[in-house]
Amino acid sequence: MSYAKPSCKIIYLNNDDEEIDVLRKHSLEGKLVVRLKNGDPYVFGRGGKICLTLKEEGIECEVIPGVSSVNSVPAYAGIPLTFPKISDMITIVSGITDGGKLFDFQKIPEKGTLVILMPGKRLEEISKGLIAKRNPSEKVAVIERGTYIDQRVSLVKLKELSELKLSSPSMLVIGDVVKLRNFLWKLS
Amino acid sequence: MSYAKPSCKIIYLNNDDEEIDVLRKHSLEGKLVVRLKNGDPYVFGRGGKICLTLKEEGIECEVIPGVSSVNSVPAYAGIPLTFPKISDMITIVSGITDGGKLFDFQKIPEKGTLVILMPGKRLEEISKGLIAKRNPSEKVAVIERGTYIDQRVSLVKLKELSELKLSSPSMLVIGDVVKLRNFLWKLS
Repeated sequence: MSYAKPSCKIIYLNNDDEEIDVLRKHSLEGKLVVRLKNGDPYVFGRGGKICLTLKEEGIECEVIPGVSSVNSVPAYAGIPLTFPKISDMITIVSGITDGGKLFDFQKIPEKGTLVILMPGKRLEEISKGLIAKRNPSEKVAVIERGTYIDQRVSLVKLKELSELKLSSPSMLVIGDVVKLRNFLWKLS
Repeated sequence: MSYAKPSCKIIYLNNDDEEIDVLRKHSLEGKLVVRLKNGDPYVFGRGGKICLTLKEEGIECEVIPGVSSVNSVPAYAGIPLTFPKISDMITIVSGITDGGKLFDFQKIPEKGTLVILMPGKRLEEISKGLIAKRNPSEKVAVIERGTYIDQRVSLVKLKELSELKLSSPSMLVIGDVVKLRNFLWKLS
């Protein structure tokens, strides 16, 4: 926020429901409006929905891509998402879904890197679904509060996952790349 | 590069093979060395390999995550990678592989968003492999020179893909999110 010009009006939003209304109101007053968000607006973010709604009303939108937690959080925890001869495919899903129905476990590949964003509230359901598709002894990196000062990373077996209680925000990374953390993580 | 202090020595590398040697040499001279790259070093980049090699030799490394072409190029072309009720899963693979063997088409999900980085040189092989897993009439966004001034985006059917000749760098985005481009792309 410190980069904003002194002439900018800064509005903090308490919930996402009001964001389209606030964007519309100030745009229609002829203002240049910036909605600044964590992460990337088009990777499990609300960017698509916001832009589609506004454009249908004739309000121009432009999306500036950001650094998604999908790559930044594993990187900070010492986990590359791909690595020669270890993983050449990344699959990304989220535990927070529109309408409440979880992603289709049948579509999850049996091998390769799997990133699950925000698994916290559906952890038991996610663990159960994953065990049907992946090796129950496979290593899972559980990253809580990734990149924050109080980040916590645990390596557990997939079958042990359901017993955990996670701090928010959290992320799971599953696949053989997880083992590279032991070599790549920089103790600070 | 304009952010570098005047006291920095700037070295341009012509090929990736020399990068580990250059990093090692200057690190062992006690310098702080930054390897500045396009995109994210841990998403189909050489970051993992570089860090693993240097750390095995006792040289500390830290990875600063970047904005990957995986999300920035589709965003700039007006394509969100996920969208409520349209796609809740992203799969990412690359046409450039270590050792020459392409990713396993059997692992590609039949639905959801599929991003294929650098398909150019293997386009015929990729098209053929994909048609075995996905609907041949499915829309594919072919993004050539994404985010550059001479960016070109074409929407074709999967079965038409093999006929194309692509400029480098290129990317394919496959799945129903591709159709959103018609509503979200900002003509500039």
